[in-house]
Amino acid sequence: MAGTPNVAVFGLGSMGYGMAQSCLRAGLTTHGFDVVESTVARFQDEGGAPGKLIEIASDLDAVVVVVLNAAQTEAVLFGENGVVAQLSEGAAVMVCATVPPDFAREMAARCAAKGVLYLDAPISGGSIKAAAGKLSIMASGTADTFEALAPVLDATAETVFRIGDAVGAGSAMKSVNQLLAGVHIATMGEALTFGMTQGIDPVTFVDVISKCAGTSWMLENRAPHIVEGDYTPHSQINIWPKDLGIVLDVAKSAGFSAPITAAAMQQYMVAVGMGLGGEDDAAIAKVYARNAGLELPGEDP
Amino acid sequence: MAGTPNVAVFGLGSMGYGMAQSCLRAGLTTHGFDVVESTVARFQDEGGAPGKLIEIASDLDAVVVVVLNAAQTEAVLFGENGVVAQLSEGAAVMVCATVPPDFAREMAARCAAKGVLYLDAPISGGSIKAAAGKLSIMASGTADTFEALAPVLDATAETVFRIGDAVGAGSAMKSVNQLLAGVHIATMGEALTFGMTQGIDPVTFVDVISKCAGTSWMLENRAPHIVEGDYTPHSQINIWPKDLGIVLDVAKSAGFSAPITAAAMQQYMVAVGMGLGGEDDAAIAKVYARNAGLELPGEDP
Repeated sequence: MAGTPNVAVFGLGSMGYGMAQSCLRAGLTTHGFDVVESTVARFQDEGGAPGKLIEIASDLDAVVVVVLNAAQTEAVLFGENGVVAQLSEGAAVMVCATVPPDFAREMAARCAAKGVLYLDAPISGGSIKAAAGKLSIMASGTADTFEALAPVLDATAETVFRIGDAVGAGSAMKSVNQLLAGVHIATMGEALTFGMTQGIDPVTFVDVISKCAGTSWMLENRAPHIVEGDYTPHSQINIWPKDLGIVLDVAKSAGFSAPITAAAMQQYMVAVGMGLGGEDDAAIAKVYARNAGLELPGEDP
Repeated sequence: MAGTPNVAVFGLGSMGYGMAQSCLRAGLTTHGFDVVESTVARFQDEGGAPGKLIEIASDLDAVVVVVLNAAQTEAVLFGENGVVAQLSEGAAVMVCATVPPDFAREMAARCAAKGVLYLDAPISGGSIKAAAGKLSIMASGTADTFEALAPVLDATAETVFRIGDAVGAGSAMKSVNQLLAGVHIATMGEALTFGMTQGIDPVTFVDVISKCAGTSWMLENRAPHIVEGDYTPHSQINIWPKDLGIVLDVAKSAGFSAPITAAAMQQYMVAVGMGLGGEDDAAIAKVYARNAGLELPGEDP
């Protein structure tokens, strides 16, 4: 990578936009692409590099794909007008969605066939950390790939966990983290509402449990949303049927029984069925509250 | 309470012995009672006050009951030669076992009928903190009761959470904490072994996850036991069918569905069935490992 690195970010949602901004701030030449044209225009107004993909693709050093899932990732990389076919040999692709490890390996093999490097790089941290360039990235790939993407990793991440040389390991670690995070959020909802049936109010729950052995990172992060009755979606309920679905699919392929994950998955599916999919994932508590006839803070009786 | 408080600790197991030592260290006149006579003798050798219960009971200011469960607690308080009938009016009883809130309320009412104060005071922290006088105690009871037991609470606890005036609230909060702690330990086992099926070794699991959103207090405390292959029982598997059983019984009485707790409960019951009941609760990972044909650190192939 000689001179100023030339980067394209695909997917300017809340995570991708922040990562693209972080690349700009780090002095990288940064193109932003999204299906929403007005978002692309807004990014260019803020300093994003101009040009259609077909005009700039062969000059790209790095491509960052920050879309929702595996299907969107594949479409960006290999769909109609897919970017990989337009890249020069030696360019590097960094894929940030939570995807199955086998999918990551398949994408990497197809990139390799075109001489394109692939970093399996799921991200964690939310939109605020994305905008601040302070994400956690669980990444796996060859040393060459890490080197090629160093300017992008430096610009976007506070912590890069190098899980190994083999594509798939990053996605595997992300799915392990999502198993825990998804179960912990739902268990927080189960415990907070169980406490309410015994006269423990949510404020006392947070005050006491956050100082006890029953605490978790997710409990401390999400339970205050319930206390405040604020379900503004920092991270949506909808993420969990997808991410725990990946965990359970991978587990099934491995002959691995994951009964606690499966129980949590069902609660998220109830939440979606109740129309809560677009709310913050702390709204999992509403499933328990509605089932048990409890009134959470901020709810109309 | 005039002069040096006169205290009796019932149950000199790993928790009770440490609490009794802490009372001695704080200068309280401390009697220790246990079904194991040699343990009583050992405690008296270390400075414990002598005398049979019948000889000293009427002079007691405070009684601390640190036995395994509700049945043992009831036996100490109201069984044959039960202590409550022998106490003077105004003495205070502090019950530390994890018990159902309704049981605590029943015991308190029976104590009140004899003019004896009752503190619903489940403890948390393990044997090392018990010996150091640094337990966490989730306590509920009247202001008079807290005042009467202040010397004991000062001697044994680092943190006293006052959950309210009503007996039962302390036990309710403890059951909320146990719900979370029990689920988090089992989920740690589920995630660690799931990761192994995807090539994530336990050392990497702990290194990465303890810095990510998927972490929990229990994960950071227990997962290292698995990494080290050391299942010395700091807290036994056997505790969890009991404590999650209380959660599920209370939930049933309240018409509250707790599917994640129920799933974790089944895993602990499998562990007991496999003969792991006396091992450290991190051994829940062995259930998953055996089911999936995985080899944990330190296990013979």
